[in-house]
Amino acid sequence: MWQILQAFTMAHEFPVCFDRGTFSPDNRLLVDILGRAGKARHRVLPVIDDQVLAGHPDLLERMRAYAAAHADEIELIEPPLMVRGGEICKSDPQEVDEFYQRTQTDRIDRHSFALVIGGGAVVDAMGYAAATAHRGIRLIRMPTTVLAQNDAGIGVKNAINYKGRKNYLGTFAAPFAVINDYDFLSSLSARDRICGMAEAVKVALIRDGEFFRWLHEARHRLAAFEPEAMEYMISRCAELHLNHIRTSGDPFEQGSARPLDFGHWGAHRMEELSDSELRHGEAVAIGIALDSLYSHAMGTINTETLLAIRDTLEGVGFTLRHKALEQLDIDAALQGFREHLGGELCITLLTAAGQAEEVGEIDLDVMHRCRQNLVEAVWPA
Amino acid sequence: MWQILQAFTMAHEFPVCFDRGTFSPDNRLLVDILGRAGKARHRVLPVIDDQVLAGHPDLLERMRAYAAAHADEIELIEPPLMVRGGEICKSDPQEVDEFYQRTQTDRIDRHSFALVIGGGAVVDAMGYAAATAHRGIRLIRMPTTVLAQNDAGIGVKNAINYKGRKNYLGTFAAPFAVINDYDFLSSLSARDRICGMAEAVKVALIRDGEFFRWLHEARHRLAAFEPEAMEYMISRCAELHLNHIRTSGDPFEQGSARPLDFGHWGAHRMEELSDSELRHGEAVAIGIALDSLYSHAMGTINTETLLAIRDTLEGVGFTLRHKALEQLDIDAALQGFREHLGGELCITLLTAAGQAEEVGEIDLDVMHRCRQNLVEAVWPA
Repeated sequence: MWQILQAFTMAHEFPVCFDRGTFSPDNRLLVDILGRAGKARHRVLPVIDDQVLAGHPDLLERMRAYAAAHADEIELIEPPLMVRGGEICKSDPQEVDEFYQRTQTDRIDRHSFALVIGGGAVVDAMGYAAATAHRGIRLIRMPTTVLAQNDAGIGVKNAINYKGRKNYLGTFAAPFAVINDYDFLSSLSARDRICGMAEAVKVALIRDGEFFRWLHEARHRLAAFEPEAMEYMISRCAELHLNHIRTSGDPFEQGSARPLDFGHWGAHRMEELSDSELRHGEAVAIGIALDSLYSHAMGTINTETLLAIRDTLEGVGFTLRHKALEQLDIDAALQGFREHLGGELCITLLTAAGQAEEVGEIDLDVMHRCRQNLVEAVWPA
Repeated sequence: MWQILQAFTMAHEFPVCFDRGTFSPDNRLLVDILGRAGKARHRVLPVIDDQVLAGHPDLLERMRAYAAAHADEIELIEPPLMVRGGEICKSDPQEVDEFYQRTQTDRIDRHSFALVIGGGAVVDAMGYAAATAHRGIRLIRMPTTVLAQNDAGIGVKNAINYKGRKNYLGTFAAPFAVINDYDFLSSLSARDRICGMAEAVKVALIRDGEFFRWLHEARHRLAAFEPEAMEYMISRCAELHLNHIRTSGDPFEQGSARPLDFGHWGAHRMEELSDSELRHGEAVAIGIALDSLYSHAMGTINTETLLAIRDTLEGVGFTLRHKALEQLDIDAALQGFREHLGGELCITLLTAAGQAEEVGEIDLDVMHRCRQNLVEAVWPA
């Protein structure tokens, strides 16, 4: 036996930008990003979530005016690829297929760009299409929802569903750049804006006590969607997620490193039980409350911290009761999470606001009691 | 505008092993490779090219005996996934789909392994399936042809065809390990063995003059498939390809770095013109001869080197004449290659045996004359 140990490193680098008015003709952000690939007239295929276009009917006109104002640096491929927003874009192969077709008919190669403007599902599905066509077309993501801007749209994953299994197919692929344009948030429903805040509370609780105290203090301004508060919430949440990817030592999750998933073991199951009536952020908020109650019951956080968590979640607009919580089969959900992790259970609990530990076992009696308290809204005084 | 420049590096490391008798119960290579993922009973889904099984009918029996002898370290998932060998595996979605189905029904997760045993097409298609299911299942490749062992099966690419376009969908993904077991070569046809030698001549000519002189000297032993000569040819060719991936500075071809492609601009087109009657290696051999004649005509290699190239190619068994060469539309083929490269033509020419340069222009009159000489087998004395 003879062997060669093949070894090399890949450097990944991409800017995550926070801005307004990306398509104002005097805004150079997008063309400067294209310029990172060299001085040229770069070919850009716009891929647009139809729900975003409905909320911003002048978007195409503004994009065309922008491209015209920077015609030496950008060639906007026409017509844009319109895709259906929401989960359908990940579940039905039609959108991914249309992306593949367009890359053929419009001669999009590995040096061309896809500019994907949409919510989390569109960013996920079109990111998958861009990562696999020609073994990877340059992808610029413009996430348009709170959740996509502060979490789902800024990382290195993409995914589509496969025969009813969520996120079953996907790759790890760094985008070329991410532009979080806060202007897109204006057309979101109140429910969508609130949903995106659960991940901010989650990451603050396990990583950054100061950010949690800020969220608690700002909860009413966030509930009123005050722009300054929303922008800070999004950018700090995004920064913490990016730090995690960068410093985990395992950004493509090849080993045992896992995403930041406090409160998520129950959330996934409750989403399923509610038949998706409960959105991801809403389920995560309930999951955070449940695991905070459990942390308190196990004596790792004090009552003041627990109540601050409850007040923050309810303050920004979440409802912590839902029939899916009553239906939650705790033993089966933990077992499912154990399998998802590859055999060993690993649950994140809080030791303080901003500090977490991982445990390999859950006291089922205590967890059942915590669930009952949450269902009945019984909180320690 | 505020921005975070997200930056991290990914370390990739995988062994490429050269051996015989991988499934002899006393051979620890495979279980030692699994052990790189930690001490455990690793779950392994075998994926087997039906043409390989036809040539080695006792393969399954030997694999089962091997797994039984190492039952603490390997759980062989039954039944193996059988796939059709050859291009059909890349063109028809059926095989990739069956892979996805099996990962569901057999609960294959990111910590499980797919052990893919097959020719280049099977390795390509099943590598794609393994890279996308669950965002990547650990892949051990066992390429079974000369071409797959010395070139196509050892790198970081995978691909399937899409609506008639070859390799249109794919990813860059490092395998967990590659095992080149020379025993598999015994069932190959003479034509298949010869085909795989074109890439060895190619990489020797542009990278390693000593290896080229060895190939020239060993050409008759290679034509007779003497095991020792075949093994050295494969391992040295593989080593040169691995060196290129490792030292190119751009293993995932994100910039302008390109694969080692001497003689390939004409080869791709001749394969198409022959309607795949001409195999890749056969077309590459003709492409090498053509670009060597051109290099000679431009005065960058001497007659002795040119004739040594011809004698090596013909000596190992290639025929350097084919009607696809007569049909080759040189201008259009160069134009197609230019587009493939993203706009700028870049053709590799020889400056010596083992040394190459890249040029941005081709003298069409000279190239037409070289083609005519090759068609008529007119060589300088």
